[in-house]
Amino acid sequence: MRRNDELAQWDRDHFMHPSTHLAQHARGEAMGRIIRTASGVHIEDRNGRRMLDAFAGLYCVNVGYGRTEIADAIAAQARELAYYHAYVGHGTEASITLARMVLERAPDHMSKVYFGLSGSDANETNIKLIWYYNNILGRPRKKKIISRWRGYHGSGLMTGSLTGLEVFHAKFDLPMDGVMHTTAPYYFRRDDVSQSEAQFVAQCAADLEEMIDREGADTIAAFWAEPLLGTGGIVPPPKGYWDAIQPILRRHDILLVADEVVTGFGRLGTMFGSEHYGMRPDLITIAKGLTSAYAPLSGSIVSDDVWKVLERGTDENGPLGHGWTYSAHPIGTAAGVANLELLDSLGLVDQAGAVGAYLNARMAEALADHPHVGEVRGDGMLCAVELVADRDPRTFFEPDRKMGATVVGHLAEQDVIARAMPGGDILGFAPPFCLSRDNVDEIVEKTVTAIAQAGL
Amino acid sequence: MRRNDELAQWDRDHFMHPSTHLAQHARGEAMGRIIRTASGVHIEDRNGRRMLDAFAGLYCVNVGYGRTEIADAIAAQARELAYYHAYVGHGTEASITLARMVLERAPDHMSKVYFGLSGSDANETNIKLIWYYNNILGRPRKKKIISRWRGYHGSGLMTGSLTGLEVFHAKFDLPMDGVMHTTAPYYFRRDDVSQSEAQFVAQCAADLEEMIDREGADTIAAFWAEPLLGTGGIVPPPKGYWDAIQPILRRHDILLVADEVVTGFGRLGTMFGSEHYGMRPDLITIAKGLTSAYAPLSGSIVSDDVWKVLERGTDENGPLGHGWTYSAHPIGTAAGVANLELLDSLGLVDQAGAVGAYLNARMAEALADHPHVGEVRGDGMLCAVELVADRDPRTFFEPDRKMGATVVGHLAEQDVIARAMPGGDILGFAPPFCLSRDNVDEIVEKTVTAIAQAGL
Ligand SMILES: Cc1ncc(COP(=O)(O)O)c(C=O)c1O
Ligand SMILES: Cc1ncc(COP(=O)(O)O)c(C=O)c1O
Repeated sequence: MRRNDELAQWDRDHFMHPSTHLAQHARGEAMGRIIRTASGVHIEDRNGRRMLDAFAGLYCVNVGYGRTEIADAIAAQARELAYYHAYVGHGTEASITLARMVLERAPDHMSKVYFGLSGSDANETNIKLIWYYNNILGRPRKKKIISRWRGYHGSGLMTGSLTGLEVFHAKFDLPMDGVMHTTAPYYFRRDDVSQSEAQFVAQCAADLEEMIDREGADTIAAFWAEPLLGTGGIVPPPKGYWDAIQPILRRHDILLVADEVVTGFGRLGTMFGSEHYGMRPDLITIAKGLTSAYAPLSGSIVSDDVWKVLERGTDENGPLGHGWTYSAHPIGTAAGVANLELLDSLGLVDQAGAVGAYLNARMAEALADHPHVGEVRGDGMLCAVELVADRDPRTFFEPDRKMGATVVGHLAEQDVIARAMPGGDILGFAPPFCLSRDNVDEIVEKTVTAIAQAGL
Repeated sequence: MRRNDELAQWDRDHFMHPSTHLAQHARGEAMGRIIRTASGVHIEDRNGRRMLDAFAGLYCVNVGYGRTEIADAIAAQARELAYYHAYVGHGTEASITLARMVLERAPDHMSKVYFGLSGSDANETNIKLIWYYNNILGRPRKKKIISRWRGYHGSGLMTGSLTGLEVFHAKFDLPMDGVMHTTAPYYFRRDDVSQSEAQFVAQCAADLEEMIDREGADTIAAFWAEPLLGTGGIVPPPKGYWDAIQPILRRHDILLVADEVVTGFGRLGTMFGSEHYGMRPDLITIAKGLTSAYAPLSGSIVSDDVWKVLERGTDENGPLGHGWTYSAHPIGTAAGVANLELLDSLGLVDQAGAVGAYLNARMAEALADHPHVGEVRGDGMLCAVELVADRDPRTFFEPDRKMGATVVGHLAEQDVIARAMPGGDILGFAPPFCLSRDNVDEIVEKTVTAIAQAGL
């Protein structure tokens, strides 16, 4: 085993980390952490420090760490056939089986799944498929995409454009042309605090309708949305939101893409967020929960109606010119099969629902009345605590005070990992589904302490 | 084990394959193939059919199939820690070690490596870094990118735009704005057959210079190029090409991105194509050979000069808003470490050079004078045979006759996998580095037969 100081030096000298302050890291001013192993809901670093990971990596290790069933499936696949491509109709038992398993779990009107690597590339695939679809239908102008402020859909050029968070746009010249953002369905942060939830939903719908009218429905291809805002603050949709939005999309023949990278495969206590909130998407983006992150794998699930047009497209134009070398990689698909089997055999989707409800209830009980907590919210195994300077009138802290990050820091001192969500002082919790009620009690108690330690 | 007919049915019903005729596949008209296992240079399907894979998957299984050293490394990592993220300075022993190993092998002036999943996403990262770089340098207009006709840089929206092949553009509305293509460095297909190689190179340089002048150098950020054209036809650069191109880029302060997804880590018999052809890139894109495809992993290698600007950017603006959930995935980086160790311990880079030279020599000997072979070309473990209707005057077959695909079909009947490259009738060979001289003799002999079987 390498020495820690040697690794730390190499790290600073050569490793460019994602979402990191590059200069501070290279100068050794920022705290790095080298993770060695993990089990259940706990990770352990190379200094022997053990932490409760209440964010499941990046809300992706849904079945928990150290699952030997998935590790064994990966090992067996690596020995039997680590790689062959899936181009021109090639497959493996794992990739075909997983395609079948995904469609068995997806809403009934879905037909096929394309496998990629990341949530970002699956969204990218979906954009390509939608543009192709409208070209085949003879609507070459119907190409713009509407997503929402506070949405998160990836970090690429077009997928980062779909994302509606400033920190992913600044200095990268994003969003690119052809992507527009409509109102975030974030009732707590409504501009007009006098609005009722129903009034706010009506306004979201009106804002969307207005954007469509302004741009022309014949120029708009798709509406991109997480069932519940994830990275933008862990915000369940206001009541009636999807019932108000979907008829507008249907009226204007605008496809609905449900980005279920976070919500797919159980995080809300149901298999998909679409069914959970009554959405009927034309395409579904999946990643994280598909493999619980044991190996990189994402997917684009295509509805019957869209698929028919894609088929017609290849009959008219020959093979589809789209593919990643590692599409449907055997290691990823083998991990996916084992992961979905484990979800079922351990009843982890129900557990996410039940323990998640307990987490949300306990957190609300402990903090909903706190003078610096504006809202405790969540659904399934997702929970957020939004800090405010004042509850009434609702005022936020200056961003420079970094109150959210400070509280998360105090949680880390107590060996609990939460995430400070961008664009506010929002503590995010998204633990593995195998979380116990005792773990919940520990998280809640330490969150209360951390908020106090931050001087609130 | 699942029954073959059951899998085949699920495959048609649910699995959307990359680069496939979707309608024919779903109707069961196209030949699929379900691969079961593989070893050395051979793959085996579920019907027990064994084939010599002379394209190493998609020129990626460089060390050959069935390497237990890599499978063991993957298995050990899956058991110890299948996943933790690399955001905000987090790492694992594998990811840090691999960063170090990549930089030890990269040209001296390179500084850091960012790990992604696919060659496409690594090119996407590089575009983002370059735009950021010019924003930090206060040159917000310097953003356009020049790539080349016949280049291949991926299948995303912007990366598919960099790609200079019609089949990846059509019906997808690509290329997007801001990407321009200059002359392909493909001497055999020069428009003016009377040109000498030196004249052709001078013209490539003049075409580039003319494009830069027309657009304005202050609007052009980067030049994107494979050291040797891969998917566009396996075409080594004409003599003097890089010596003619690089001074132009330097004069106009245009960054050079070397897309070494195919050439990186040994395929040319040298560690990188950049050193092989005397290029001095500012960024290098890597993927395939980094793990020999045993697990998905790609990378962006950043030079010292670019890195300094990125550091300054984070000092001025805070953390870089860029990352994939699976950046530096532990399974991928563990595979990468084992793969690079194996390359060294087995001397596979030298073997690629030596056996590749034998492959190219034998192929030329057997086919260079054939009346329907216009050119046999290659470098290292890459070889192409370009078919022509006539050698003199040089005329090509009608694309509809699909002569390249026909010959590749006859090779498959003899259990040898080659690839019909797009945009011509070009047989492509890119075998694993562990290819033996006997394997070469078999490939060459069967290629001669297949060409005869195609009636040529
Ligand atoms: C809803 C959503 N979509 C897409 C993505 C992008 O996935 P990836 O990071 O794998 O590219 C994420 C990542 O957090 C996500 O939360
Ligand atoms: C030179 C080059 N760049 C980029 C890519 C894209 O890599 P991926 O298919 O992993 O996205 C390829 C794939 O063949 C390639 O050959």
